[in-house]
Formats: sequence, structure tokens, C-alpha cells
Amino acid sequence: MKRTHYQQEHDIFRDSFRQFCQQEVKPHQERWIEAGIVDREVWEKAGSQGFLAPFVEEEYGGLGLTDFRYSQIMIEELARAGASGFALSLHNDIIAPYLHSYGTAEQKARFLPGVVSGKTILAIAMTEPGTGSDLQAIKTTLDDRGDHYVLNGSKTFISNGILSDLVIVAGKAPEGITLVLVERGMEGFSRGRNLKKMGMKAQDTAELFFEDVKVPKQNVLGQPGMGFAYLMQKLAQERLVCAVGAVAASWFAFDETLRYVQERTAFGRPIGKFQNTRFKMAEMKTEITIGQTFVDSLAAKLMNGDITPDEACMAKYWTTDLLNRVVDEGVQLHGGYGFMDEYPICRAYQDARITRIFAGTNEIMKEVIGRAMGL
Amino acid sequence: MKRTHYQQEHDIFRDSFRQFCQQEVKPHQERWIEAGIVDREVWEKAGSQGFLAPFVEEEYGGLGLTDFRYSQIMIEELARAGASGFALSLHNDIIAPYLHSYGTAEQKARFLPGVVSGKTILAIAMTEPGTGSDLQAIKTTLDDRGDHYVLNGSKTFISNGILSDLVIVAGKAPEGITLVLVERGMEGFSRGRNLKKMGMKAQDTAELFFEDVKVPKQNVLGQPGMGFAYLMQKLAQERLVCAVGAVAASWFAFDETLRYVQERTAFGRPIGKFQNTRFKMAEMKTEITIGQTFVDSLAAKLMNGDITPDEACMAKYWTTDLLNRVVDEGVQLHGGYGFMDEYPICRAYQDARITRIFAGTNEIMKEVIGRAMGL
Amino acid sequence: MKRTHYQQEHDIFRDSFRQFCQQEVKPHQERWIEAGIVDREVWEKAGSQGFLAPFVEEEYGGLGLTDFRYSQIMIEELARAGASGFALSLHNDIIAPYLHSYGTAEQKARFLPGVVSGKTILAIAMTEPGTGSDLQAIKTTLDDRGDHYVLNGSKTFISNGILSDLVIVAGKAPEGITLVLVERGMEGFSRGRNLKKMGMKAQDTAELFFEDVKVPKQNVLGQPGMGFAYLMQKLAQERLVCAVGAVAASWFAFDETLRYVQERTAFGRPIGKFQNTRFKMAEMKTEITIGQTFVDSLAAKLMNGDITPDEACMAKYWTTDLLNRVVDEGVQLHGGYGFMDEYPICRAYQDARITRIFAGTNEIMKEVIGRAMGL
Amino acid sequence: MKRTHYQQEHDIFRDSFRQFCQQEVKPHQERWIEAGIVDREVWEKAGSQGFLAPFVEEEYGGLGLTDFRYSQIMIEELARAGASGFALSLHNDIIAPYLHSYGTAEQKARFLPGVVSGKTILAIAMTEPGTGSDLQAIKTTLDDRGDHYVLNGSKTFISNGILSDLVIVAGKAPEGITLVLVERGMEGFSRGRNLKKMGMKAQDTAELFFEDVKVPKQNVLGQPGMGFAYLMQKLAQERLVCAVGAVAASWFAFDETLRYVQERTAFGRPIGKFQNTRFKMAEMKTEITIGQTFVDSLAAKLMNGDITPDEACMAKYWTTDLLNRVVDEGVQLHGGYGFMDEYPICRAYQDARITRIFAGTNEIMKEVIGRAMGL
Repeated sequence: MKRTHYQQEHDIFRDSFRQFCQQEVKPHQERWIEAGIVDREVWEKAGSQGFLAPFVEEEYGGLGLTDFRYSQIMIEELARAGASGFALSLHNDIIAPYLHSYGTAEQKARFLPGVVSGKTILAIAMTEPGTGSDLQAIKTTLDDRGDHYVLNGSKTFISNGILSDLVIVAGKAPEGITLVLVERGMEGFSRGRNLKKMGMKAQDTAELFFEDVKVPKQNVLGQPGMGFAYLMQKLAQERLVCAVGAVAASWFAFDETLRYVQERTAFGRPIGKFQNTRFKMAEMKTEITIGQTFVDSLAAKLMNGDITPDEACMAKYWTTDLLNRVVDEGVQLHGGYGFMDEYPICRAYQDARITRIFAGTNEIMKEVIGRAMGL
Repeated sequence: MKRTHYQQEHDIFRDSFRQFCQQEVKPHQERWIEAGIVDREVWEKAGSQGFLAPFVEEEYGGLGLTDFRYSQIMIEELARAGASGFALSLHNDIIAPYLHSYGTAEQKARFLPGVVSGKTILAIAMTEPGTGSDLQAIKTTLDDRGDHYVLNGSKTFISNGILSDLVIVAGKAPEGITLVLVERGMEGFSRGRNLKKMGMKAQDTAELFFEDVKVPKQNVLGQPGMGFAYLMQKLAQERLVCAVGAVAASWFAFDETLRYVQERTAFGRPIGKFQNTRFKMAEMKTEITIGQTFVDSLAAKLMNGDITPDEACMAKYWTTDLLNRVVDEGVQLHGGYGFMDEYPICRAYQDARITRIFAGTNEIMKEVIGRAMGL
Repeated sequence: MKRTHYQQEHDIFRDSFRQFCQQEVKPHQERWIEAGIVDREVWEKAGSQGFLAPFVEEEYGGLGLTDFRYSQIMIEELARAGASGFALSLHNDIIAPYLHSYGTAEQKARFLPGVVSGKTILAIAMTEPGTGSDLQAIKTTLDDRGDHYVLNGSKTFISNGILSDLVIVAGKAPEGITLVLVERGMEGFSRGRNLKKMGMKAQDTAELFFEDVKVPKQNVLGQPGMGFAYLMQKLAQERLVCAVGAVAASWFAFDETLRYVQERTAFGRPIGKFQNTRFKMAEMKTEITIGQTFVDSLAAKLMNGDITPDEACMAKYWTTDLLNRVVDEGVQLHGGYGFMDEYPICRAYQDARITRIFAGTNEIMKEVIGRAMGL
Repeated sequence: MKRTHYQQEHDIFRDSFRQFCQQEVKPHQERWIEAGIVDREVWEKAGSQGFLAPFVEEEYGGLGLTDFRYSQIMIEELARAGASGFALSLHNDIIAPYLHSYGTAEQKARFLPGVVSGKTILAIAMTEPGTGSDLQAIKTTLDDRGDHYVLNGSKTFISNGILSDLVIVAGKAPEGITLVLVERGMEGFSRGRNLKKMGMKAQDTAELFFEDVKVPKQNVLGQPGMGFAYLMQKLAQERLVCAVGAVAASWFAFDETLRYVQERTAFGRPIGKFQNTRFKMAEMKTEITIGQTFVDSLAAKLMNGDITPDEACMAKYWTTDLLNRVVDEGVQLHGGYGFMDEYPICRAYQDARITRIFAGTNEIMKEVIGRAMGL
């Protein structure tokens, strides 16, 4: 499909980032999957080329590129490279914005240069064992001790859980849910094992434990008690980021499948020439095209400040459902090869499943959309 | 959803056409359903207010409004009025363009003023008993007799079949499929009964019979033998028109259902407060929003001359499938009332079913999309 | 599919009932649809041949045939005749059993002979405007006046609403929900107009009004206050009856469609030879076969007294959903003809829609099934 | 659901096999998954307890238990133990029957005792790289050299590929497709690496290579050239076995999920109490119950020799589709835990995907069903 969403400068940026993926990401992907984690080096290389949090102001080492389309491009190109482990977008588009929006000048000066250079890899810790999408039920506590809080609790399913140097942790302070910045090496902060997952195998995911961690008050992010509000404010972008990724991953799975059905023959002709295959491919292409159009339109709205929370939820649930339909059909059309780990469609299938669950399950999305119309 | 597709002049036009619908269409709808046909008067009133083929040049009585969004608005407002019988868009957006694009100056001067005033209601006759989407198989013949053709054959499922004054008929001439203009009153041209249908009951649909009809050569539309090519060229707009209508009808059914589930109570609360209802409403709103975004983007492409045939097919099949899902869920949420003719959702359900079949079945759409990618 | 469910005596019965349908039902079907009601004569003819409530004991004029498979056969054969208006099964399998199970000897002697002969057509009146599946919310009242109750209220969507001679009405007495027998001609009992519906057009459906109707206590069915319990006890059979009908109607729609796709050609071959058609037909046949197997197994359980309420709900919701998928695909494969009233598939489509709503909506079915597992 | 399919002797057998699974299978499952292969010991233990090919006559060491329900029970209990790697049913129900039906007395005497004791693990090698469901296209050759054939070619996706001691190989002999028995250790017969798969990770799957393997003619199974016919004859049982397994795996996933949604709370109540969850659980239970009923009815038909090829295809495609819906919903209801390898539902999800592909893809099933009705 022809997209009107991008201009020339975006195409130049895309070329450059695509080259980065080819050189610094793709060749390592199998090794990272085996290891369950990416190398720190790829973070620093990305930083050195300006691909980390490029929206950050130049005074903190960034490029001041606030155009969301640069984020879209990086998400799209990582998907096209089949690279699900390198959590660049999580760092850039979901976590760094908290620091950027709510951080004090001192915090920004202290942390953003590392965020931009790749020395400071970010994580965000909301989910706890026993609380999924229900943020109000978190049990992690922040006890006020005057000049610092004492943090106790545990978090789970934390992406970049092993690699991260700075973790935004949500806990219950006397003022309510509060976000604090926990740094690698703080006493009482430890990490569990790297969790074994169905997919996204190159991305380290872990439990984090906080046992009497002293968090100085200068590490509070924004106002105490405002954590829930901050999380809500950032959700629209987070969910749109998921949708951008889901559509991009759908194109990847579609392209892999299209090539396969054109090459593979059965009963004397390419399997793409069977009507059932042609119809399935047509349905996939249609829905991905429609999803892309919607996501691009919301990206434009995001940049104008017009996006509504329920629109972001619509995009997140619908595109991740779509992605799962696409990889499922892609596997089916690959036949036995679709079940073999070495085939990209097999990996894509396994990676895709979590997208309907993370960033708020798709059921939560429907709750939000339904409530927005008064139901 | 907030649409950026329209400007202020469109809103003014919409208000004026909405008023027309309220005054001249809606009050007659039940009577027209009962009669199986609309009054000729509504055509003439529409003409007198400039709503018929407004894209036609002023020299032929039109307004020279070539902006497709005016068509969109009229389709949307008729859907909002629940008025499925008044085939204004068929006349304006699907048939009149043939005359406008392929007609000679003489033909335009002869027919377009009536098309614009509502004196000349249009129909197009392609489908035959035994040929549906397979145009190459038509059996209607045009025998060349020097200064005229002799037309023989029959056509079926012709909308405006009873009302029409001028019918574009596709037949096989020695040169190949050829379009001719058959006028009311030509000898040998007769009409069957008004067919009884599942829905669209206020729209007259009939078989047409041609028995040795003399068609003078000045009534040939465009070049002989070019009929198939002309039909193909107009299909993208025709299918987009279907999609615009399907999305608009989806909003109508959605709005009717939303109001119902907010008002109706069961087990002590509005049925909209049940999670299943909330989820279904959220799913519908999401898909209609996504469909609307896609249709608007294609309308913009159509105006730029950028739309591709397979994109139009994507929109036609996906939005008409969507419409059928929406009316089905709408009926379900209305319970027993959804089965009662007097409820708009019941009518909407019955009207919707044909949309997956007309203008090329949705299976044909998938064929076109699949072939466009080489499958 | 080969069914092991029936024995030789059933086959003989089937032949005889099929002949009855061919002679006494099918020839009148179009006229009944036009009239919105069947003739009383067909009831009496059915009675005279032993097809009404054959389970009734011989002392009341019945045949004492308690084998549920005779009911199945009659439902199946009416479906095969495409005869949706003649509510024989409603009378036989859903309403007459109330009289039979809960009636006093006096009531049985008074009413059952007419039920069996067809002189006394039955209806049951539970649903009210504003209460659908929520029986506890009914507003119809039964005031105790010593030797009689005074009945006030209204009921809606009552099948056989116009034809019925004896109506079992649920009302709120001081003791709780109570069933009473309201007879044609009782003062204060009136009927609304025959409702216009999407389908089931030959079946009269009406509102019933009760204004100070004196109901003598000998017309109370069973114990006062036990109405809800009685309704619950009869639901399993009622729902299984719906499922039997839905599977039978699915076969009918499937057979109509199979014949059509074998005969109709497009692009040079029967449309049944296209892979998409073949797959859709295969899917339909599979699901109908599976549904038939399940329904037959539950019929056997019903006869053994083993069926559970949630199993009946499973059958009702799944088979009626199935029926709606089948008629939808059937219409699609018929193309434009599927939208024409005269085609049986078009009628079947319109008739089918109510089955997901009546006898408890399919959402209610899922509630029951879910609760039965403690959710 | 209450099943009438089994008698007391089956229950006793089930208890004994369940104990075997608890003691000899389940404790090793994690280790086997890690290793990608099960221990040979479990085969021998199964053999020593009579669980291998129990239908084999006593003269060859078997039990002479030809009742298919014993196979069903073992498939069901392995599924209930979440044990997808131990390919007992493949050995018992799919491969051993070839030897049993088509083997000479000499072959039976030579091989069956090992098949029964677990010393001779079986595999069957049909699929080749580049031929999936299209058996006619196989390229493996059997050149006739008088008293032996020379076998050349390669096979892929062979279950028990590493463990197997005796492999039934399909190749093209001068007479047509022919089955031969290839024994471990034959010169020129080698095995590729154990393939890494999405699921079924404890089951060894490999490529097999045949390079000038001398196969003596006494190792031909049945008549030369009859291979395709033999494969067709065994397919109904093979496909029913898949269906039995799919329904059993569905129950396993359902039970895991039911327990989870009863225990896990969100927003203050068990997630099973949300209407969406209740409906999803109700839908799953309904469809599994229906699938079980169908599979049991076909098992009865199989034992009577009544099952038709298209019925077996119906069961295979529908139940494996069902299984995939169930595990998908099960993962969703588990939230993030559903993506963690250690949760049984995560494993079940990954295991399930191949079932729609193996033993003939579900698309092939629909071809067979469609063709059986003349389409």
C-alpha cells in the first residue's frame, strides 16, 4: 500500500536505521535468542548513532526529534528484521518519556545522557505477581522516612529486567501510588532469573525484588501520589506503540508467507494458486492495510495531541488480534515448516501471543472503550 | 470519532441534505416500503435542490461540484435516516458517471439535464439470470444493422428497474461487450414485476426484457466493444460507494443499538452494563471507527486519482462484512424486538444482507485482491 | 450421515408424517405466509391423523407414544418441508407437557382431548414488554379473590397468539409466580394485532392483554407460587426441541445450497467446484453432522431422564448459532437469488434469526452453562 | 459430561494407565522437554505393563485387546498428564497396525514381539522436504535389484525419528508407491539432527536419509505398488486418533484454565466471575462436550467398521481447530502467566499448533469432505 504518512526526511532516516538493523541486530538475533538476552553493545551502538530517545533535547545529548514518525520507523524496521528481543522502543517510546515529562531538571541531567547513549538501559516495573491489569491492587510499599522512602515488594514480567540500569517502580506511598527511580546497585534491589517464555526469547524478562531499598526523595518521579495519573497519561502513546508494532509484525509475517506460497508447490502448482490460499492472503492483506491506515491516522492525531484514550485502546486490541490471526494463518500456510523454530513465521507466531496480553489485556481495552461510551 | 476528512463547506451541505432527508424522505419511508417503490416526486425534489449528480457541469444544469465528499455526505445522511429505498447514490455516483465520462456532447445535452432535474431516473443493466459476477458470460445480444443495433435478451436484479427512464444496457455486439442507452418507451423494452426481496424493500428491483429493441447508434455509449473496459474503470468508485454506505449503515445500526442497551433493563440494570454487552459494543465501535478511517482515506485517494482497484475491493468486502456483523449483533442485543419489522434494527438487518453480494460478491473482491498480488 | 438413533417403527412414522407435510402443509405455505397465520384446518387434520400430542394417554384421546423420537421426526420433517409457520412442535413438545405434567385429572379431561384433536390450540405467555429472559421481573398480577384470581397485565411475542384457544399465563399471585389457564372468550382477555416479523411469517405472533380477567381457581395449573419451578423443569426439553429444529433447519438450508452450487455455473464451471465453495460446504456439513450427533445423544439422555439443564443450553445455543452460520453462507452462495423472497434459502435466513433469541437468548444459555460450573 | 461410551473394564484399565502416567511419565516430562527426546526406558516400562500395541495377538506377545477404547483411554490419560512427547499412540494406533494388517507371518514374528515389549520403537516416513500432504509427489526411489530394492531419498518431520528402530518408508518402486521396513543399522540409513520445534518438544523429530540402502524383499510390507492404497486404508483410524487426542488435550487445557480463573482474582473478585470469562468458559465447555460426543460416536463406528473417510476428516479438522481455540483462550485468561513456559497452558498452546497440520492439513480434510459430496 502507498502511505502518505511519511516525507522524504523519514525515508532517509529509515534507510539509515534499516542499515543499523542489518548490521548490528540481525546477525546477532539467533545468538541472543539462545542467550535469552541481547548484548549491551547493541544499546551503545544504537546510542552512538542517535537511535536512542532521539526526542531528548540536545542539552542532554539527544537530537530534539520530537516527530513520532521516527519512532514508528524504528519499530517498523525492527519488525521487518524479525528482531523481537531488542527492546529499543520500550526504552525510547514507553519509559524514557516518563523521565522526560515528569523528571526534575536534576534528574534529567543525571539520567538522560545515559538514556541517550545507551549506558542507562531503562525498565518500568508495574505488574506484580497476582496483579495484572489491576494497578490499584499493587502491594509494593514506599514507607516515608523523611528524606527517603523504604521500598518493599516484588514485581514480575519486567522487560529489560536483567539488563536495566534504571527502573521506574510503582509503589504505594502514604500519598498514594508513587513512581520512584531505582538504580542498579541500590542495596536490597535484586533480580530473579531470566524467565523462560513462549516467545520474545531474546528479550530478558525477570522478577525484581525490593527488600528495604532506601530510595532518596530526589529519586521520586514527579509528585508523590500521582503515579496512577502519570501512568494513565502515558498509556495512549504506549498502546499506540503496541499497535504500530503489531501492524509492522503483521506485514513481516504476511511477506514471509507470500514468498512461501509463491515458491512452494503442491499437487503441481504453487500453493498460492489455490483459491483458499488466495482468499486467505487477500483477507490478510486487506486487514493489515486497514490496520496500517488506522494506526497512521492515530499517529497523526498523537502528534496533534488529538488522540483519545479509547482510540488508542481500539488500535491496541484490534491490531494485536489481527497480528495473531495473521501469524496463525501464516503458520498454517507454511505447513510443517511453520512448526520449525528456524522458520521466521514460527518465531513470529510465538512472539505474537503476548501482544494481546501486555500493556493491558485486550479485555481491558474493551472495558475502556465501553466505558468511554457510558456503558 | 473526530473526522478530519471534512471542511466547513461540507458541514453546511450536510445540514441542508439532512433537512431534505427529514422532510422529504423519512416521512414517506414506511409507505414506500409498503409500495415496494419510492415516489417519483422525491427524485424531482432532490433535483430541484441540487442533490442529483451535482458534479455535472453547469451547462447541463449541474453544480460542477466534483468533490466526492458531497457524495459521501449524501450516502451517510440517507443511511442515518434509515432510508434504504431511495437510490440516489446509485443514480448519482454509479450510473451518471458513465454518461458523464463516455457520453458524446449530444448525449450529454440530451440526457444530463433530466438526470440533474430528476426527470430522467437512471438504471444500469449488467446482470442476467444465470450470470452474476461473471460479466463475460452475458448472453444479451446487439446485432449490428447499419444505423442501429437490435437488442435481445433479459437482465435481472435491476435496481430502479421500474422507475428508470434511461437504462445503460450491456450487450454483446460484434465488436464485443458494448453499452447502449435504452430509453423508456422504446418498442420491445418491457419490465417484469417488482421483485420481492428480503430487504431494501422500498427500492424497486425488476427484470428487464429486450425483444428486438431498435437502438439507434447515437445511443451507443462510448466505443462499441469497450463495455467491459468502461465497467472496469468505474468499478473502483462503485465499490468505494458501497463501502461508504456500509460504514454509514453500520453507524446507524450501532447508534440504534447503543440507545437501546442504555434504555432497556434486565435483571435490574441497563443491559449495556453487562460486560458481554459492553464488549460487543466496544468491538463494534472499534471496527466501525477503523472502517470509517479506511474509507475516508480511500475517498481522499479517489479524489487524487490514486486509488487502486484492489483497495476499492478491500473496502467493499471488509465494510460490508462489518455491516453484517454489526446488524447481527444489533438484532441480538435488541432481543425479541430485533425480529419485529417496525424496529429500525430489524430493517437494517434485512437490508444489509445484499451488500456482500451486490457490486461483485465479496468472493470476487478477494479474487481481485489476490490476483493483484500475483496469486 | 448414517444415524443409529432411529429404529424401523420410527422410519414408518416418518414416512407417514412426511406425506402429511407434502399434502397438508407445503401446498399452503405461501398462502399462510401471505396471511401471517396458518389455517385452523391443518391443526385438525394433524389431530385426526394422530400427530398432536401423541404422548397423551389413550383415555384422553392420545396414542400414549412417549418416545421423544416421534417429536424429533415431526420437527425434522416440518423443517425439511421448509414450513416454519405451523407451530405443531410448540403445541406438542413445549406447551402440552405442562398440562400433562401439572394438570389435575379434571383439567386433563377438560382440555387434553381438544389438544389432541386440534380443537384446542395452545399458547404459553411468559414474556412481557420490557421483560425478556428475566422471568422474575414480570409485572402481570393475579389477585386472589377467594374462589378466583383476577388477572391483569399484558404479554408479548406470543406464538399462536391469534390462533390459541387455551393460554398458559404466568402471573404474580400472592404465593409467587403462578401459572393459570386462560381460555378463549374469557371476559377481559383480548389480543393485539398479528405482529409483522422478519421471518416465521406464517406463524401468528401477538400481544395478549388481560384486563380484570376472572380466572377460576380450578384453572390454576399445579400449585400457586410454583410457576417458576415448573418453567425451569420444562426448559430442558424446550431447549432441546429448539436444538432439534435448528439442526433440521440447517440440513434443509444445506441441501438447498448443495443443489444450487451443483447446478449453477460461473466462469465455466459449477460454483461448487471452486475451492472456496467446496470448503464452505465441507465446513457446513461437518458442523451439522456434529450438531446432529450431539442432539441425538441428548435426545437419548432426555428419554433416560439423564439430561442436565446445562447440556440442553449447550445444544440450544450452539445449534442455533450453527443454523445462522449455515443460512448465512447458504444465502451468500446463492448470490442475488439468496436475497429474493421466493427462494427457500432467503426464507430460511429470515426465519433463523429468532432462534438465537427465543426460548432464552443464547447469552442466557451461556450464563446457565457458566454458573453450572461455579462461575 | 457423563459419557456412556465406557464400561467397567475400561475404567479399571484407565486407573492402571493413569497410575503409569503418574509414575513413569509425568515426573520425567520436564527433563524430556529439555533433552528433546524421551528415555527408551519409558517405552520398555510401558511394554512390560502391556500398554504397547495391546491389540496384538498373544502369540506375538500382545494381549489381543482389539477394543479401540483402550487406545482412547491411553490417549486421554497422556493428554491429562500434559505429556506430549511420549509417542505411544503413534506407535500403537498409527504405525503398528500397518505391520499387523499387511505384514507377513514372518515379519510379524520377527518384529511384533519387540513392538509389544518396547524394544522396537516404530516410525513411519512418508513426508519429504517439498512434499507435504501430496503423497503422489514423493521422490524417494526403490530400485528393483532382484532380491532386494535399493532405497534412495530423504524424509522429513519424522516423529520418533531419532528413537525408532524400525521405520516404514514409502518409496517409488517400479510397481508404484511401495512400503518397506527399514531397520536401525542398515547401511546407508542415517538420521539428521533432532529438529527444534515450536512445541511437542519432548518428541524427537528428525530428517531421515537413505543412501543406497539395500532393502531385502522380505522387508517389503504387503504388495509392491500398494503403498498408497494401504496408507489410505489406515487414514480413517489415524485421523480419528488425532481427534481423540485433540479433544482430550482440549479438556486438559480447559481444566487448567477453569482452575486458574477460579483462583485468580482481579478487581476484587475471581476472574471467573466476570461475564466475559464465564461466557468464554461456557463456550469452551460446550464445544469440547460436543466434540467429545462426536469422537465417541465415531469410535463406536470405527469398532463396527462403519466409519467413513470423510467422517474421520470431519473429526480431525474440527477437533484440532477446537483445540487451538481452547488453548488460545486458555492462554488469554491466564494473562502474562500464559506466556511463561512453566505453565501447562503455555506448553499446551505450543503443542497444539501442529495438530491442524499433521496427518493431512485441515485444508486437505476439507478437500476430502467436499469431494465426498461430489464437489
